[in-house]
Amino acid sequence: MGLKPVNLEEAAGALSELWSPKVVARVGAHYVKVAKVRGEFVWHAHEAEDELFLVLRGTLRIRLEDGDVEMGPGDAFVVPAGVRHMPVADEECWLALVEPVETKHTGDVITERTRSIEKQLE
Amino acid sequence: MGLKPVNLEEAAGALSELWSPKVVARVGAHYVKVAKVRGEFVWHAHEAEDELFLVLRGTLRIRLEDGDVEMGPGDAFVVPAGVRHMPVADEECWLALVEPVETKHTGDVITERTRSIEKQLE
Repeated sequence: MGLKPVNLEEAAGALSELWSPKVVARVGAHYVKVAKVRGEFVWHAHEAEDELFLVLRGTLRIRLEDGDVEMGPGDAFVVPAGVRHMPVADEECWLALVEPVETKHTGDVITERTRSIEKQLE
Repeated sequence: MGLKPVNLEEAAGALSELWSPKVVARVGAHYVKVAKVRGEFVWHAHEAEDELFLVLRGTLRIRLEDGDVEMGPGDAFVVPAGVRHMPVADEECWLALVEPVETKHTGDVITERTRSIEKQLE
């Protein structure tokens, strides 16, 4: 068993590619991931899975059809299953995500930004 | 739908009772909780459930039978299902936890510190 914790901010900071989540831990059937993002992602939904966003550094806007969620460091927000959303970061933002192991990060939409779970586990 | 994020550090800071986790969000079958701790907890295990600890403020030592995990702010560590552990905080520490909704925070041990899930949801 590894007895070393993972520092989420360090793990996010070490990422070189934007919008390319990396799995850093597993809790039951959920992965904890970190990501570095800037700009707009894509509108998508996860049909059956909630998705938790936690801002580590910077600010994030999660656009929803009902309005925008504005988030700063330490803020957590759960996008419920089935809810269409689009993350937007005006400046570079470092994130942690908690989502079921079967979640595709672009949900029901496949784009050039879609990263396979194998890629996220590298 | 609530469009406001929850700030984990603020939520933890607002707690008045030590070792009494409060549910702040739900992601699928997992709760996200915050807690304020100081001193030693109790040795316990969760037979079937992994448990993620994330330090928000201060430092935490998770004692395991194989050794200690030393954690500072931003550090995350998953105690695997079935592994006996005891959290210890020399100074006051603010935490976030991610664990299945059915997890009892004192695991297989019932003590005067055990808080029912109804209490954690208040």
